[in-house]
Amino acid sequence: VGDNLDRVAAALGSAAGRADAIVVTGGLGPTPDDLTREAVSKWLGLPLRRDPELVRRVADVFGRLGRPMPEANLRQADLPEGAHPIAPEGTAPGFVVERNGVVLAALPGVPWEMKAMLDGTVLPLLARRAGAAAIVSREVLVIGVGESATHERIADIVDAQTNPTLAYLAGSGRVRVRITAKAADEDAARRLIEPVESEVRGRLGDAAVPDHASLSAALGALLIEREATVAVAESLTGGLLGAELTEEAGASDFFAGALVVYTDEAKARVAGVDEAILAGPGAVSKEAAGALAQGAAARYAADLGLSTTGVAGPAEQEGKPPGTIFVGACWRGRVETRGVRGYGDRANMRALAVTAALDLGRRIVS
Amino acid sequence: VGDNLDRVAAALGSAAGRADAIVVTGGLGPTPDDLTREAVSKWLGLPLRRDPELVRRVADVFGRLGRPMPEANLRQADLPEGAHPIAPEGTAPGFVVERNGVVLAALPGVPWEMKAMLDGTVLPLLARRAGAAAIVSREVLVIGVGESATHERIADIVDAQTNPTLAYLAGSGRVRVRITAKAADEDAARRLIEPVESEVRGRLGDAAVPDHASLSAALGALLIEREATVAVAESLTGGLLGAELTEEAGASDFFAGALVVYTDEAKARVAGVDEAILAGPGAVSKEAAGALAQGAAARYAADLGLSTTGVAGPAEQEGKPPGTIFVGACWRGRVETRGVRGYGDRANMRALAVTAALDLGRRIVS
Repeated sequence: VGDNLDRVAAALGSAAGRADAIVVTGGLGPTPDDLTREAVSKWLGLPLRRDPELVRRVADVFGRLGRPMPEANLRQADLPEGAHPIAPEGTAPGFVVERNGVVLAALPGVPWEMKAMLDGTVLPLLARRAGAAAIVSREVLVIGVGESATHERIADIVDAQTNPTLAYLAGSGRVRVRITAKAADEDAARRLIEPVESEVRGRLGDAAVPDHASLSAALGALLIEREATVAVAESLTGGLLGAELTEEAGASDFFAGALVVYTDEAKARVAGVDEAILAGPGAVSKEAAGALAQGAAARYAADLGLSTTGVAGPAEQEGKPPGTIFVGACWRGRVETRGVRGYGDRANMRALAVTAALDLGRRIVS
Repeated sequence: VGDNLDRVAAALGSAAGRADAIVVTGGLGPTPDDLTREAVSKWLGLPLRRDPELVRRVADVFGRLGRPMPEANLRQADLPEGAHPIAPEGTAPGFVVERNGVVLAALPGVPWEMKAMLDGTVLPLLARRAGAAAIVSREVLVIGVGESATHERIADIVDAQTNPTLAYLAGSGRVRVRITAKAADEDAARRLIEPVESEVRGRLGDAAVPDHASLSAALGALLIEREATVAVAESLTGGLLGAELTEEAGASDFFAGALVVYTDEAKARVAGVDEAILAGPGAVSKEAAGALAQGAAARYAADLGLSTTGVAGPAEQEGKPPGTIFVGACWRGRVETRGVRGYGDRANMRALAVTAALDLGRRIVS
């Protein structure tokens, strides 16, 4: 909804007509285009009041950041009459209010502030109001098998189930099979999921990543189990492989480091790729992928080296078209490489290469 | 909207009641939970027909990927009667259909497929239908000044303007001021934007990034102008700084490479950080940030070295709390560092560090 008072208020009216709860994100900042407070007030037919406790909290945030509080931020302490504030994570407080049995939660648009309030306040509140029922989801991550081919293997399970239900989420070489159950409590919901998940995993074999929602977490767990470390050498992915491996806290237990070697000169000088490979098969080749994986492992004294190289496009490189991708792995001296046919835009090519490298890594280690 | 035929059809009815155009994303895949085709058919009151030309195109996609086409993918060639297909980018065709003057475009949910069809087919179609009017937006990227402080400097411009209008988008240490104008054609809209943008930039001084929508593009342009290159050494950002610098094609003109040195051992051995720094001020210190920037420049023989180090949390490190962040830059031998107070979750801390390092880089180079 655009930054327009009447349109936001109308959208709230429309949402209230077809749902029991409304979550609004954004429009709680200090500038004049932040209209959520006013729009909710209009929808409720009740005025805004400035909350002295919130004034103090917003001022505290600026105090901690060591910055003076601009006058405009005082608007962030305004609440529609009858609303309950949610303490600010950043500078914007959220709030919850009820009208004719419909709960409305207004949260900031900054993702981390929104998530903290959603998980800490809003979801528990809605769960309490929903009563005894619990909804639990588990995801099975599938690599190297497309969405429709995944469905062909488990179609009868999907068709037979009403609780849990199954759904697919596909993108960039990964398919997630989401299994969702509803029951009186979370344990009961999990007991409904378990046999279905186990059957799905059985049908998908090693295309299903064991017991983790992300490939990097699955590889990290394997490495910790083997008291081993990983280092990476990236060309087309430019740092994304390292970033994915270090996304969660605790990565220092298995992640040694990364080299991003974008130019031929860097590949030779920093990652130790043989000049003969660069002059022969080229930087985009399975030979280069293997040498990069070996170079990463050697440079960081890691047990596992992983690598990516390829043409992300839009232009071709070394006469190779966009979508030419090779990944490599070197596990305690043993080297494997894999060619991947990339598709889509530059971001998708890079995501596909990260997925392929992590998948090759978990297969060579396990 | 959930994967439910009646609810999707009802949402289409509701959208048609308040808009002239509807864009639907997702639900065009081959599995039974992909219900957009059926829901649009229900909303139109017209049956689905299998399009022989689309059957051939979907089969072609699988041919190019060298994979057999599962039977389920034939559903992707079904179209509501009267709909015009949009050729598939991946395996899912989109379509456009009209009912009582409302245009509906159904696009795949995979982001790169959706974007290609939106830019290539849907937006031009809607622009033609909208007639002569053109809407153009420009963004001014602001670094190091918060949303409300930005507003204080340009509030009178925002208040005085009706065309163009100004809006703010804030997050992770960056504020974007979006200036949007509506006119008879694009050139006329740009002429309305120019004087307002110039005035906004004048008020914001060097907090406004010159003429580029991203910090990495601004830094890249500066480096190319000076025939210089950049290399980075990353700790807490784990590869994100390199990934951001290489996001757009052409990065090899200025990006030499990156080191991701997560452990103390890697910082010393691979990035050449003095053991005395690691044992004294520690890996999370301005001294380490400076040494990392120098090490990156030296290792890749680059003109500019940039670095990040810090505590992303949730645990403290070296007795330093989460949110302790230092970035460094080394430009042709001259070193500068900056301390940043991080906030929010781990992802936000990492994003703040990337922003601060790129901003320090553009300031030391310019």
